[in-house]
Amino acid sequence: MAIELPVAVVTIATAALALATRNSAFQPRSRPGALSGQWASGHTAQFDYETRYFQQKVDHFGFAEDATFKQRYLIADRYWNHNGGPILFYTGNEGDIIWFCNNTGFMWEVSKELEAMLVFAEHRYYGESMPFGEKSFSNLKHLNYFTSEQALADFAVLIRSLKQTIPGAQTSPVIAIGGSYGGMLAAWFRMKYPNIVVGALAASAPIWQFENLTPCGSFCTIVTNDFLKSGQGCAESIKNSWDAINNLSSTAEGLTFLSRTFHLCSPLQASDVGSFKSWLIDTWVNLAMVDYPYEANFLQPLPAWPIKVVCTFLKDPSLSAELLLQNIFQAVNVYYNYTGNAECLNISQTATSNLDDQGWYYQTCTEMVMPFCSDGVNDMFEPVPWDLQLFSDTCKKDWGLRPRPDWITTLYGGKNISSHSNIVFSNGGLDPWASGGVTNSVSDTLIAIVIPEGAHHLDLRSRNDKDPISVRKARALEVEYIKKWIEEAKNTSVSL
Amino acid sequence: MAIELPVAVVTIATAALALATRNSAFQPRSRPGALSGQWASGHTAQFDYETRYFQQKVDHFGFAEDATFKQRYLIADRYWNHNGGPILFYTGNEGDIIWFCNNTGFMWEVSKELEAMLVFAEHRYYGESMPFGEKSFSNLKHLNYFTSEQALADFAVLIRSLKQTIPGAQTSPVIAIGGSYGGMLAAWFRMKYPNIVVGALAASAPIWQFENLTPCGSFCTIVTNDFLKSGQGCAESIKNSWDAINNLSSTAEGLTFLSRTFHLCSPLQASDVGSFKSWLIDTWVNLAMVDYPYEANFLQPLPAWPIKVVCTFLKDPSLSAELLLQNIFQAVNVYYNYTGNAECLNISQTATSNLDDQGWYYQTCTEMVMPFCSDGVNDMFEPVPWDLQLFSDTCKKDWGLRPRPDWITTLYGGKNISSHSNIVFSNGGLDPWASGGVTNSVSDTLIAIVIPEGAHHLDLRSRNDKDPISVRKARALEVEYIKKWIEEAKNTSVSL
Repeated sequence: MAIELPVAVVTIATAALALATRNSAFQPRSRPGALSGQWASGHTAQFDYETRYFQQKVDHFGFAEDATFKQRYLIADRYWNHNGGPILFYTGNEGDIIWFCNNTGFMWEVSKELEAMLVFAEHRYYGESMPFGEKSFSNLKHLNYFTSEQALADFAVLIRSLKQTIPGAQTSPVIAIGGSYGGMLAAWFRMKYPNIVVGALAASAPIWQFENLTPCGSFCTIVTNDFLKSGQGCAESIKNSWDAINNLSSTAEGLTFLSRTFHLCSPLQASDVGSFKSWLIDTWVNLAMVDYPYEANFLQPLPAWPIKVVCTFLKDPSLSAELLLQNIFQAVNVYYNYTGNAECLNISQTATSNLDDQGWYYQTCTEMVMPFCSDGVNDMFEPVPWDLQLFSDTCKKDWGLRPRPDWITTLYGGKNISSHSNIVFSNGGLDPWASGGVTNSVSDTLIAIVIPEGAHHLDLRSRNDKDPISVRKARALEVEYIKKWIEEAKNTSVSL
Repeated sequence: MAIELPVAVVTIATAALALATRNSAFQPRSRPGALSGQWASGHTAQFDYETRYFQQKVDHFGFAEDATFKQRYLIADRYWNHNGGPILFYTGNEGDIIWFCNNTGFMWEVSKELEAMLVFAEHRYYGESMPFGEKSFSNLKHLNYFTSEQALADFAVLIRSLKQTIPGAQTSPVIAIGGSYGGMLAAWFRMKYPNIVVGALAASAPIWQFENLTPCGSFCTIVTNDFLKSGQGCAESIKNSWDAINNLSSTAEGLTFLSRTFHLCSPLQASDVGSFKSWLIDTWVNLAMVDYPYEANFLQPLPAWPIKVVCTFLKDPSLSAELLLQNIFQAVNVYYNYTGNAECLNISQTATSNLDDQGWYYQTCTEMVMPFCSDGVNDMFEPVPWDLQLFSDTCKKDWGLRPRPDWITTLYGGKNISSHSNIVFSNGGLDPWASGGVTNSVSDTLIAIVIPEGAHHLDLRSRNDKDPISVRKARALEVEYIKKWIEEAKNTSVSL
């Protein structure tokens, strides 16, 4: 999201709209150990999966490069009906597949009822699935196979192999499931490989966040609305904070004040102010994405309804710059330091390091060109128009290539998807990514489910006592559609 | 079709099952001048098209190679309704697009009734559409972008550009039309880009001639049946010819006899016997493909019902080897010398040079792996099993790569295509390629039309007084479906 000054390139993420400025894009971030067995929202459960690796072609679409690499996938068959029971297949997105596995409780919870096998497939160039090992990001030649088409082909080839090699799986109907970019992949997978998957659940999948399919400002408007309705004065306080920052950061004293007030790990320089504001923007955006009704740890450990908590610090937008920003710090601190363990705040980090900013930044600079803008009128941000040229120039500078902003819509159909079938698009009313999502059913078999009280793919998370009724209903409906697809598949089954 | 000894790799073609043995595969063949204005079946008509070029990305699926090349296409808008009239888009296959344009009279004839624009798009790596100019075939790196996926992407990008730039075309529904490999592309184009084309007419498109989707011997059985029913003793004469050739070619005198009897341009060597038999096989196969009810010049200038004419020379299968082969020559001579202008017969040529054997050979060695076999029982050929390993080894030797025989079925769905829509598959009962075609309707919108008296995509050719009623009915039905798709498109129109 290019809404910070002077130039920033924002990476969306499964969940994270993690910032990748020109400065930070190439900073490798530390990876945590495996999260296996750790349940996302505080409770624990043993996810009894097995980690496996599949030998994939580096290039499915050409024959000059015949190398292979190991794609990681996780497989769980505890409840699977070994006589053709269905396979729920998570179409991995921009991060470590174990993290997605652990944050997709929905699949685990429905596996018993559906007698389903679970497979979580890692997306190439993320996690351990590196086509050229540690050199995968070393040059354009190695990066050349980093596209959504190759990822979908990986999934197709993997599924075909699983069905051919696992006894009892030959006739198993496969359902694609994914969230965010993974949801986009799930939907596109069904569109492009209906021979491989009988249906798809695309949760919080902004498949229309491209070109001019959706107004570029919608995203920021939804973020703003979340703050507007979470507390009097809250959005306005944030809106007023930009001028306050601009004023203060114009002097050395002001910079010192900001560094101290925000407990920054490194003193703020005049040249960092753009990044500082980007970091704040991403914080508000991330809060909107994970505004879950219960304590959770997705992008960060957070309290229930975190925006409401944040807004308790932002009741008076009319305060002086210094007081206002002290409140802004308190608000931001909810996001970064809910555990109380943070010693200082680092403006180059906004979310879990399970998401790979660098990889996603490459994808936005190639295929995933999502126009974002803000106008300061319908949203609480400084006005920044969408500037494709600037975006492209930045990509050229950082990666040596230019994005192809109209390729995704040509390839995957833009709004012209009515001839496809068996996709459920779910979106949360609180989730800024709903801006690019399918929120009205396109046909009898392209179904939109809106979860008014839901943030980013809340429906994929495991059940919680504090779940609003809307997400419970959504999950029930999703299971209903999945059952329907499985039933249909039984009646029209054709082996490859 | 690997049905000759010792090893041969056969290229199918739009129409031609032109042979590409290891010896001939890399022989560049001369190209004729443009055929513009020359009507295929003897009558002439002015095809009033304009030749244009479109700047295409060399690689749609990666970003390291950012070069472009000029794709040729032909455009005709004489009858086009400039207010959103439909576009009939020929998905060019393995040869010079002008030749396909001139052999697809159907499109020209229906353009008036449909008020349609015609576009004939050349397939990359054929005709003038060379991604790296004269160096396109020089190495694997240059050949790397030679796939059906890239070709479909070319079509999609071209159509999107035409609709964006031609006034009045923005809402034009586009129908894909193609024959043979072009028909496969038309069908696959609709499957993969239903956002771009509202329907497809796939004439004589053997989309199931892959893996084990169809018995490998069906093709040869159909060829044989064509000869069986075209004259008493005909198929049996051909069947007996192989032993006669084997016997005669084992001596120097026999080789001389064969060279003289067949008026070969170069004396036959013992090492050529495999090629000689391949050439004969291809001749019989080609005759089956172009067994049209009227004089035509598709692969070669030929009389009406050429197999019947051929069979007048092959009435007595019990003749001695020498007499039998003299008759075989007379039969073959119908194919190669109907005009009476041939001074000698060249066993490295079997069909029009508008088809590019070399290009197609590359495609069979990569994606288009079609298993063929013969058993000498259900067909009139020597028994040759399908031998993937041998085929692969030959490809490795000739091109330095190995085919991926299961990729096409993974990518395009094999027999599992029922979720697609709006495709008419037409097949001729006489056409060997019907073996891999869709000859039974898959659903209400995936329609099979069989033309019992039709050879290879007879329906795409222009009307002729001698057309059997079945092809007239087929064309009428095809137009009906096209109209239906156009009508549907008007009701569900969504711009990109």
